[in-house]
Amino acid sequence: MTNIRTGMGYDVHQLVEGRDLFLGGVKIDHAKGLLGHSDADVLIHAICDALLGAANMRDIGYHFPDTSDDTLGMDSKVILKQVVALIATKGYQLVNIDATVCAERPKLNPHIPAMQACLANVMGCDADQVSIKATTTEKLGFTGRQEGISAYAVCLVEKVR
Amino acid sequence: MTNIRTGMGYDVHQLVEGRDLFLGGVKIDHAKGLLGHSDADVLIHAICDALLGAANMRDIGYHFPDTSDDTLGMDSKVILKQVVALIATKGYQLVNIDATVCAERPKLNPHIPAMQACLANVMGCDADQVSIKATTTEKLGFTGRQEGISAYAVCLVEKVR
Amino acid sequence: MTNIRTGMGYDVHQLVEGRDLFLGGVKIDHAKGLLGHSDADVLIHAICDALLGAANMRDIGYHFPDTSDDTLGMDSKVILKQVVALIATKGYQLVNIDATVCAERPKLNPHIPAMQACLANVMGCDADQVSIKATTTEKLGFTGRQEGISAYAVCLVEKVR
Ligand SMILES: [Zn+2]
Ligand SMILES: [Zn+2]
Ligand SMILES: [Zn+2]
Repeated sequence: MTNIRTGMGYDVHQLVEGRDLFLGGVKIDHAKGLLGHSDADVLIHAICDALLGAANMRDIGYHFPDTSDDTLGMDSKVILKQVVALIATKGYQLVNIDATVCAERPKLNPHIPAMQACLANVMGCDADQVSIKATTTEKLGFTGRQEGISAYAVCLVEKVR
Repeated sequence: MTNIRTGMGYDVHQLVEGRDLFLGGVKIDHAKGLLGHSDADVLIHAICDALLGAANMRDIGYHFPDTSDDTLGMDSKVILKQVVALIATKGYQLVNIDATVCAERPKLNPHIPAMQACLANVMGCDADQVSIKATTTEKLGFTGRQEGISAYAVCLVEKVR
Repeated sequence: MTNIRTGMGYDVHQLVEGRDLFLGGVKIDHAKGLLGHSDADVLIHAICDALLGAANMRDIGYHFPDTSDDTLGMDSKVILKQVVALIATKGYQLVNIDATVCAERPKLNPHIPAMQACLANVMGCDADQVSIKATTTEKLGFTGRQEGISAYAVCLVEKVR
């Protein structure tokens, strides 16, 4: 059988006043930010879940429970770095990730190269292995009403040992 | 060209009183259950659609119409077993599945090992080939309001003959 | 490392009166159609994003901005053809696509073979490389309330040179 596996992640956080907005490890100027126990970086969380799922190592809530003091206010880049290390213990290495952030606002397009560079750096991979896309949901649903932001990610990993 | 293919599935069912809750083939104690023509196991249905899609063999609604007496109250494990047999007729075998269930409640984390064992048994594969994850949607949307439960699945299949 | 990569796409458009409904390049009889700058073919858009994401070449909004006169009323089949050409410039060729359209109505099942044939023709691939599935969201959410239609797509591409 092939040594390639696929994984997917989906995450949601509420948009609220009085919080900074972090997406893909990048702080983005906006009137609201995402609510969560950690920094609530919904894009990084979806990517972590895709990686953990591909390696069949449970999910982000299992490894980084939102009831723990250790994860309170945690920088999600640290979570991602640990997830990459976790899947490596089982012999898995990233092939590529493709993710989509759903947000009515702010416009994410200008921030995508910075997110890509940041995430590749955290994961220790090439920028070409990390694709980030953005879309609105055309004013529909909770993302359309700007009540929250969601993110999807899929990935391939390869068993290298 | 490679003999690997990918597929994805997405399914939704309403949460209502007076029904048992089945997820991943496991009956879970909860005040409500999922409404549907079959047992409404939203996780198994998403997995079936991912497998059928990877093999390009239409979808679960095509093979198991919710207007048929044959599928009324049907155990979704039987549907999954038939789907695995269907894709095998075209030469496809599972590489891995990764799925996410979106439910505000109940807490699914404790039930995941049982779901994984159950599904691997039904599909005749190794437990390591079946990853199940759980998330909430942070009180947003129909899953956040506990009006329903949704499930996403991605898979890889390999053409073995 | 393997020369295979995965990608995903998600798109949403509002259902409104006074527009034709295009899905998968096929015009479908319905009381409403999808609102958008182009013909708003939500299925083709999700597929384009999956292909661009797999090749790490940004997203459909980046290449075909909905603020441009060039894309006003554009046939999405033309967008798809250009996307296939774009990823080929980076050496990528489609392995397979699997997509799901979420619509409460109309019934899409009878139109799926026509969509599949149309998309394979546009992409210059075999029909067996293009899987289209349909589901409802059981009256839940914006698709369940018939306020819009959404589409998910995943794909594999292979670097052939
Ligand atoms: Zn999160
Ligand atoms: Zn179902
Ligand atoms: Zn679109």
